Parts: sequence; structure tokens; C-alpha cells
Amino acid sequence: MGDMLRGVGVSSGVGYAPALRLSRSIPDPPADARHNGDADAEIRCAISAMEETARDLTARGERAGGAAQEVLAAQALMARDPALADDVKRRVGEGATAARAVSEAMAVYREMLASAGEYLAARVADLDDVRDRIVSRLLGVPVPKIPDSDTPFVLVAGDLAPADTATLDPERVVAFVTREGGPTSHTAILARSLGLPAVVACAGADTIDDGTRVLVDGLTGEVVLEPTTETVEAARSTAAARAAAAAESTGPGRTSDGHAVPLLANIGGPQDLPAALDNGAEGVGLYRTEFLFLDRADAPGHEEQVGAYRAALEAFPGGKVVVRTLDSGADKPLAFLPAPGAEPNPALGERGLRMMRRHPRVLESQLAALAEAQRDTDAQLHVMAPMVTDVEDAEWFAAAAASAGIEHAGVMIEVPAAALRARHLARSADFFSVGTNDLTQYTCAADREVGGLSRFQDPWQPAVLELVAATATAAHQAGRPCGVCGEAAADPVLACVLVGLGVTTLSMGATALPMVRAALARSSLEQCRQAAQAALAARTVDDAVTSARGHLSGLSDLGL
Amino acid sequence: MGDMLRGVGVSSGVGYAPALRLSRSIPDPPADARHNGDADAEIRCAISAMEETARDLTARGERAGGAAQEVLAAQALMARDPALADDVKRRVGEGATAARAVSEAMAVYREMLASAGEYLAARVADLDDVRDRIVSRLLGVPVPKIPDSDTPFVLVAGDLAPADTATLDPERVVAFVTREGGPTSHTAILARSLGLPAVVACAGADTIDDGTRVLVDGLTGEVVLEPTTETVEAARSTAAARAAAAAESTGPGRTSDGHAVPLLANIGGPQDLPAALDNGAEGVGLYRTEFLFLDRADAPGHEEQVGAYRAALEAFPGGKVVVRTLDSGADKPLAFLPAPGAEPNPALGERGLRMMRRHPRVLESQLAALAEAQRDTDAQLHVMAPMVTDVEDAEWFAAAAASAGIEHAGVMIEVPAAALRARHLARSADFFSVGTNDLTQYTCAADREVGGLSRFQDPWQPAVLELVAATATAAHQAGRPCGVCGEAAADPVLACVLVGLGVTTLSMGATALPMVRAALARSSLEQCRQAAQAALAARTVDDAVTSARGHLSGLSDLGL
Repeated sequence: MGDMLRGVGVSSGVGYAPALRLSRSIPDPPADARHNGDADAEIRCAISAMEETARDLTARGERAGGAAQEVLAAQALMARDPALADDVKRRVGEGATAARAVSEAMAVYREMLASAGEYLAARVADLDDVRDRIVSRLLGVPVPKIPDSDTPFVLVAGDLAPADTATLDPERVVAFVTREGGPTSHTAILARSLGLPAVVACAGADTIDDGTRVLVDGLTGEVVLEPTTETVEAARSTAAARAAAAAESTGPGRTSDGHAVPLLANIGGPQDLPAALDNGAEGVGLYRTEFLFLDRADAPGHEEQVGAYRAALEAFPGGKVVVRTLDSGADKPLAFLPAPGAEPNPALGERGLRMMRRHPRVLESQLAALAEAQRDTDAQLHVMAPMVTDVEDAEWFAAAAASAGIEHAGVMIEVPAAALRARHLARSADFFSVGTNDLTQYTCAADREVGGLSRFQDPWQPAVLELVAATATAAHQAGRPCGVCGEAAADPVLACVLVGLGVTTLSMGATALPMVRAALARSSLEQCRQAAQAALAARTVDDAVTSARGHLSGLSDLGL
Repeated sequence: MGDMLRGVGVSSGVGYAPALRLSRSIPDPPADARHNGDADAEIRCAISAMEETARDLTARGERAGGAAQEVLAAQALMARDPALADDVKRRVGEGATAARAVSEAMAVYREMLASAGEYLAARVADLDDVRDRIVSRLLGVPVPKIPDSDTPFVLVAGDLAPADTATLDPERVVAFVTREGGPTSHTAILARSLGLPAVVACAGADTIDDGTRVLVDGLTGEVVLEPTTETVEAARSTAAARAAAAAESTGPGRTSDGHAVPLLANIGGPQDLPAALDNGAEGVGLYRTEFLFLDRADAPGHEEQVGAYRAALEAFPGGKVVVRTLDSGADKPLAFLPAPGAEPNPALGERGLRMMRRHPRVLESQLAALAEAQRDTDAQLHVMAPMVTDVEDAEWFAAAAASAGIEHAGVMIEVPAAALRARHLARSADFFSVGTNDLTQYTCAADREVGGLSRFQDPWQPAVLELVAATATAAHQAGRPCGVCGEAAADPVLACVLVGLGVTTLSMGATALPMVRAALARSSLEQCRQAAQAALAARTVDDAVTSARGHLSGLSDLGL
């Protein structure tokens, strides 16, 4: 077996292929790069490269759609900025080459941004990408992009942004390895949606050369360079065993001794229903309704909303469908809702229910559409609010849901304060659903998007498990169900621990359902409880994983 | 009594004077504003206004110093930006007036910023301020600034930024009232450092006209418009009673039945030592060491550090001096430490100990200077790390401190995970110090700087009190002291509750010490404990305050 790198496995499966790097290093034109004296011709080159870059970005955005389109359109605007063009013309007029002039002019922008404020990270990276694209055109070097390849490859990168992956061909990529990123980064979400193995926060990713053969285990986070044939075979055999177990696992979720744990799907709209049904979901545990509201000038109409909600209710006759009300805010701005004031930390800002309390009409219309959608279906509609923080929030939402005639109104538990006060919230919530991604982010004060903090983004952190336990216990004492709908539920080992902590349902991306079902079927409720107690008593993440596994012996044939 | 507005009192005291508003509304030059044909003269006007604005901003920054200087220097850079000048020249060349050209050119920048990213709030506001200043010069209207007045006034504003208050004359301002801001906003910190009453997050602040007589109670958050003479007299009489109680309170902190609660000062450098001694501090509970590191190209040398630390140790012979190691990060960047990657949420990024684990030499040199400073003094040096999150962090810091020969090494408890796992952290920490500002921010997932979220920034949130209780209990069981050094300790009622929760020392800005000492002297330990239990059992912030007060009858003569 060859050298091994370790990162965080964020999308399971095993991939093996030569590496191809997404490189962003464009040579910097030297300070003394002077043109041959024909300034007008040089200016035409510069303006044309800027315009071509803008057109390319716009076109890529149109192909990609969604949030990526918005990012790329903004970048196109930068490339076309008239002040930038003026500055480039001036610098070429003074003798600089087009490439040098663009590089200098954009460095002025960059410095202005980087020196003036403290929160410019995302903008500076977008600006750098635009500069790289214009300069590489002018120098005749390749524009940074996902490498072309006729044969399958493992994509290795510092990080992947929507702009990079907007037009990715999923047929050619067998796995992702990135130096940055966390379990809920863009890379991780994209990998899971494509069903590709992925390892993020992999410290040595920069050292992988193009062409190095790489074995990626997206469950364990191991990245083996130039593995032996035996290593590849063993990994493939474990992957096959997992696949077989997943294929065999059917029916409702339950432990080996028959304790029922309904397994539900996270969906982002009606388009995700077929995958949920294919993978045996017993209902929907998290229906993210943002897709109806993003990228449009007005709120969606009543009938449009009713149709989108009814599709999910009709897909699961008699089953549970949990709809999360609009989770908008500074990081998911909506065109028709006035933005709040300046937010230096959007994740700590006016998100979710906080925004709805400013704009109650939007929530009222959504609740009315939900109540209408349920009419004449026999699914069990459950509606929950995101970013509930205290009792006043819970009471306000319960009253709004009751006014709309919604019977089952619950709250997301994703703010530490809500978990800590779950026994008080239970009086005005019919159910809880723990969002482990945000709960982990806030409990450990660690941004989901910052690669260097991946240890603190792990829902195995015993502090996070304590809050889940406190929530589940409070729910049990009040006779309320308590689900988990974060990424934690998709980890087969952690899923068993969550059940042991008292969680009553698990909801996840549809592709994770079979493995979780298989893992539960191999573990008794008592084993789950012992694993949970062992994890709570552990001092570190590693201790928690190791000690929990020690109690879940049924998972060893799955290589878990 | 007149109309009453309510906000959050963040700096105690009573102020009464006519209101003066800090207005930022500059008329927008109309789209058809054309100059008289002499483009060159108009361009000279524009460039000269931009240059004068830049010089004014730089000069204001130099007078102000510190972080304000940095902000203002960056704004000056914007005003002098050559690309902006080029754009303005082009627009004047096309016929626009200087004011219109500046307004249009800066609108292009602004749109680029605002449309491209999501995290541009702070930058856009700075840019708007620069535009307002240049345009108002060109139009001959007043530049936005703190209003001049020969007589005392209450300053009313949307919010106050470092640039606004850099050169404030504290002789004329008797109180602050702002629509935005929270308990730890710039306004609040400034008000406390000047000893002025302040109310922030005051929803009706916009409706207060210039000249309206306003009574501001910075303890209760009440703002009375056109109060009767009786109302003003009553408020002044309560304020006088508080002042008398504060003046009488001397000696070490203790409850009415003699339970000792050492009262310590938060300091930002040797310059804060005289106020700490004047107000009877028994030591230093939080020595913020950032001042030594900010605004310089290299790390401070060994001798410079030793001198700054020794000054505090020598000021308190035999007393406790708790030094927090460098708390740098994305929101307090240091010139000599490489910035981490992009951070969309700096408060959730690589701050404090996280940054030191990347740059251990910086911490080693600080610890060595601290060990050296303690030699030949008889103060009890305690050293603590900020942003400790889990057991691995605590162990890492304890090892670093031990290597440096530091006897008492502890951890700040400001991340919820650390509070939840305090019993594990106690094995490798000699003491805890709860930072209630950040702990509240993370527990409630609510940015300290966002005015609309002030309910969630209140350390009276029962969820926050639960974490303080868990920390104090874990410390007690391990035989360790547990202090509080956040703003919570400066609230006389909450200080009693904290003692009741098991907190062993309280540290605060020096000016708050006398009132807290007076409040403790009027309450028995048993009353504090009953107040603490009542606050923990409360469902909301208001319930917690009311029920705790019910057990602290000794405070009623202070109007608390």
C-alpha cells in the first residue's frame, strides 16, 4: 500500500483513478512587461479579453442556472466594469502590456477591498478568479477550469466553488479530494448529490501530482496514493459488501430487535421525490422550501405553492411529511424581501424565523398554502420553523400555525439555546427536529465553510451529542417525537448512536438511506444505547467514534 | 410624563438634554445635473473634493488612533483611488457636474460590491460614508458629523461607527440613543468608556426630532420624550441614590453575609490601571493583550511585552492578575500573522487559540514574556487562552503554559461546547473565566453587532445562565475557581445572580465596580442563590429579570 493522506470523508463510496488537479496558478505578468509601442492595439486586446471573459462567465452561468448563475453574473459585471476598463487603458497608455495593466488595475480593486474591510473573503476570491481568467486569456495560457479528460479521473483541488463545478461532467469524475471544505461545504453537498465519493479538509491534497493514481474512500476519509493492487481490491470488496448490504436492506427502518426508527428523506422540491421513493423513504423529514422563493422578483403565488407541497404529500399516502418554512436570510437573500442591515456574520444574523417575524405576511401565505395542500390527502403534514431560539419564538410560530389551521407545528433545534431549553419549548412545539449541521456550527463556534476548523464541524463532538441527548430527553418527557435531519443522520454509525440517544426518526439525503437502514438492522436498541453512552462519556471526537463502534459489532462486515 | 421609547440600556446613568441627530442624508445630485461647459474647472473641483475628503479622513484617523485610524485610513484610500478619479473625469467630460459624476462613479463601485457577494455590509457602509463626504463638500452642504453645539445634548443616531465618534467631544454629549446596536456594539463600549448613559436598539429613535428634550436612563433602557419636571427629578434622585451607594461602597467585594466575591477589573493595557485602582479593583480579571500586537508590522519584542505585563502585576501586590493571551483572528487581523483563508463569518472562524495553534511561536514568546514579568513580583499571575473549544485545545494550551513555566493556566469559557464539557476541561485547566459576550452570541446564534437581535444578545437568556451554571458547577466539583469577565458581570442585578450560580469572581470595566460592590453588599448569598434558581426556571428574559429581582429586595433603594 502507498502513502496515505487523511481528510474528512463527506460522501461515501470508493473511487480509484489518476488524479487531475484544478489549478488556479496563473503566472503574474512581470512589473516591467512593456508593449511594443502600439497602445491602441494593446488596448483592443485588453478590452476584448475582458469582454470575452464576461461573455464566457455569463454563458457558463446560464448553463448552470441557480445560485451559480448569480455568482457568475456578478463576476461578469466585474469583468465589464467601465472604471476597470478606464484604468486598464490608462496603464496601457503608460506602456504596460495588456496583461500587466489588467493585473495592476485589478490589484488596486483587490487592495481596496482587502485593506478596507474585514469581511471580504468571498468577494476577493471572486475577483481573483476574474483576474485569472482575463490574464490567462491575454497570456495564452489555459483558463482555469475543470480539466478535460477522456478517461475517468479523481478531481483534486484547493476547494471547489459553484463557478468551478457549474458545468462539470459527472461521467468523467470518479471522486473529489480537496484541501479545504467541511462536511457541509459546496464540495460535500455536490458530491453527495452526484453520488460521488469525496474527501475534504485533506491537508496533503496539494502534494498530489497530476497522474498519480489515487484511491479515495469517502466514508473513512482515507486517500491512498499509488495503492497496491491488493489495497484497491480490498477497498472495492468492502465497497461491494456495503453495496450488497444496502441493496438487501428494504422495508421500514428498525433495529435488529424490532425497534422502529422511521427513515425519512430530505428533499429540496418535488424533483427529489423519485429518489426518495426509490431508496425506500417512509416519508419526508425535511422539505426545504427555499427553491420556491429564490431567484424571483415576487413571492410565489398560492396555487404554485399548493402544487409543490401537495406533490410531496401525495407521494407518501399515510406517511409523515415535515415541511420547513422558508429559511431565508443574509446568506440566502430573497429579491422580494428587504434585506436587513449590514451583517458581518450572516450565519449569526437575521435568518429563518427571525426574518419571518419581520415579514409575517410571507409566512402566513406559506402556512395557508400548506393547509390547503393537505386537504384531500391523507399524509401527515408536519410544519416546522428554522432558527427558533427561545420560548417566545416557539410560541409565536405555534400561534401562526394554529391560525392557519395546521395541526402539527414543530421547531427545528439548531441553535444551542433551543436545545438547552428544549423542555420549555416542548410546551409549544408538537415535535422537534434537530438540524445537526447548524447546531454543530454554533455549539463549536466554527463556520461550516472553513476547512481549517473541520474538527469542530464534526457532529461526533461530544458537546453536540450532549445537546442532542438533552433535546431527545426533553421530547420524550413531553411525549413528543424528536427527529434528526442534519448530515449526522446519514452516517451509519452515528445514526445508531442518535437512536441510542433517544432520537425517534432519521432524515437524510435519499442516497444515504440504504446504508443507514442496513446499519440499524445489524444493531439492537440496547447496543445503540450503549454506543450512545460511550460516545457521551468520551473526551474527544476520535474517542467517541472508537468507543461507539466498540458497541456496534454488527457493523464490522460493512467495514464500519 | 411624556411619550416613552424603550431600548436596551447598555451604559448606566441618567441623562437629560435636547436631542441632536447625526444625520447621514445627503441630497442625491439629479441625473440631469450638467456643468456650465468648463469641464477642466469642474474636474479640478471634483479632484480637490476627493483629496480634501481623503486628507480629512486621514487627519481624523490620526487624532483618533487605534482601530478607528485603520478604518479611516482605508476610507481615505477609497477617496484617492485613481480608478475612481479616472471614472469621475470621464463622466465630467461627458457633461455631468462634479457631484453627479462622483455619485455615479461610486454607485458603480457600490453595485459591483453589493451585487457580487453577500458579505459586503461593512464595506458598502464605509463606501457610502466616503461618497456622502465628497458629495456634500461639492454641494456645499454640511459634511455628516457629530453636530456642533455649545450646549449639552443627547446624541441620537441610526448607529455610531468609529469614524463618527473618533473626535467626539465628551463634554457636550450627555447620552447616546441609537436605533441599532447591541450590548457589545461600538456605541455601547464607547459609552461605557466615557461613563455616559446609552440606550441602543431603540426602535423609535428615528422619530425623535432635533431639539426634543429627552430623558435617557441607561440602566433601564427607557427614553422619555418631553418628560415632566417631576419625572426628570425622580430619575435624577434615583441616579443620585445610586451614586451615593456607589461612593459608600468600599473594600473587597462580599455579600451582606460576608461571602467573599473578589471584584476585578477588565483592562486593555497599563493605561487602564489608574481607573481600576481608583474604583477599588482587587486585581485584574481580564487583561486584553491585543493592544501590544495591533497596528504594527512585527510582533512586539520580549522587553516591551515584559514591561507591559509587569506594570499590571506591580499594581496589585499579592492580588490576582488574569492575562488573556493574544485573541487575534479575522475580526482583529494582525499585520505580521498571515491571514487565514476566506472567512464569510469571522466570528465563527480562526480566532483566538485557533490562530495560535497555527502560529505557536507567537504564543511561546508571549508566555515567555509573562513568565519573565512575574519574576520578582508577588502578584498571582494567571494566564488564560481565548476560544478554547474542546479538550484537545485545553490540553494543548496547558502544555504550552507549563513549558513556559506558568503555574496557573486556565481557559476562557465562551464557546458553548466548552461550557457543556467543562467537567472534562477542568482536568487540564486551573481555572475558568466565562466570557459572557461571546458565549451569549454563540449560544443564541446572534451576532453582537446586529441591532434587530438584541433579545438574543442578552446574557439574562436562561439558556446562557444554564451554561454558566454548568461551568461553575464543574469548576466547583473539580476545586477550581470560575470567574465571569463579560459584560454580564457589570449588571448589578445579574452580578448577584452569577454569584448565586456559583461564580467565584467578577471582572468588569472599572467604572462598573462600585455599583456591583454596592449591590452585593445588599444581598445575602442565600438571596443570590434563590435569585439564580428563579432566573434558571424562568421561560423568558423578562421573566428571569423580574423573578430574580423578587429575591433581591436589598436592591430596591437603588432603583434596581
